[in-house]
Amino acid sequence: MTPVRVRSVSHAAFTIERHLDALPHEVFDAFADPLRHERWYVKADDWPIAEYRHDFRIGGREHGRFSPDGRTVYLSDTLYLDIVADRRIVFAYGMASGDRPISASVATIELLPEGGGTRLRYTEQGTFLDDRDRPGVRELGWHALLDSLEAELMRVYAAS
Amino acid sequence: MTPVRVRSVSHAAFTIERHLDALPHEVFDAFADPLRHERWYVKADDWPIAEYRHDFRIGGREHGRFSPDGRTVYLSDTLYLDIVADRRIVFAYGMASGDRPISASVATIELLPEGGGTRLRYTEQGTFLDDRDRPGVRELGWHALLDSLEAELMRVYAAS
Repeated sequence: MTPVRVRSVSHAAFTIERHLDALPHEVFDAFADPLRHERWYVKADDWPIAEYRHDFRIGGREHGRFSPDGRTVYLSDTLYLDIVADRRIVFAYGMASGDRPISASVATIELLPEGGGTRLRYTEQGTFLDDRDRPGVRELGWHALLDSLEAELMRVYAAS
Repeated sequence: MTPVRVRSVSHAAFTIERHLDALPHEVFDAFADPLRHERWYVKADDWPIAEYRHDFRIGGREHGRFSPDGRTVYLSDTLYLDIVADRRIVFAYGMASGDRPISASVATIELLPEGGGTRLRYTEQGTFLDDRDRPGVRELGWHALLDSLEAELMRVYAAS
């Protein structure tokens, strides 16, 4: 007997704010530049599978393939819907575990000058599917990614 | 002197629920079938410009071009992130006025059997840019689209 497949949808939003010791255009470059983006975002976790197609422009589409253990593969599908140089990035992205979608989100990154550096405000509005992904886990994931972004900015700009 | 361009972002979510006198698979078909979707969605308003590329599948991308007056042209860019036949459709979409993005959203359509018909629940999580688009206007727009969907369902299924 095939088990009844329970379908559920949960909507949630969260915001993370952080002060960064780099200028807005320097933070923006860490998203726009393929090599720098690869360093802090794609390769953030040293996972055995971490592939990404970079296409940073309005209407650009990026596909990622990630696995923490080489077995469970997560796919990401990203579409940029607004980019304002040094100021704002808006993108939609879906996550799937294998061929099964687990979330769909709109993310906004705002960059505001603050005390010789930048206040980064990350807002995600997410739709979490069938209880296979959760807002709290996603929020922790973005805290870790922003830690990785900070380390990248330190590496590049603290030396100069 | 070039005016200072004010940048603003406003995040909002809304839900619309409606009972429809058609079965879930009949409602689903109105989204999945290109000719029916053209009738109630693309051509809903008799606008002089209403063009659409239909690509209804997970990962599918649709581009629309609309104008109420033949001068101001609105572009839509849609990416399907989840489709469960007769049950659920999740898509991200951006709207632009000319070449300027005005909003980015994730929309969830849930179809639930209810009293011989369907309860449709539409949820949109939206990011509205630079005060050029507003959640209230978007919500009214979707009420009008769901009116058009109801008329389409009546046309097809009331006759059978």
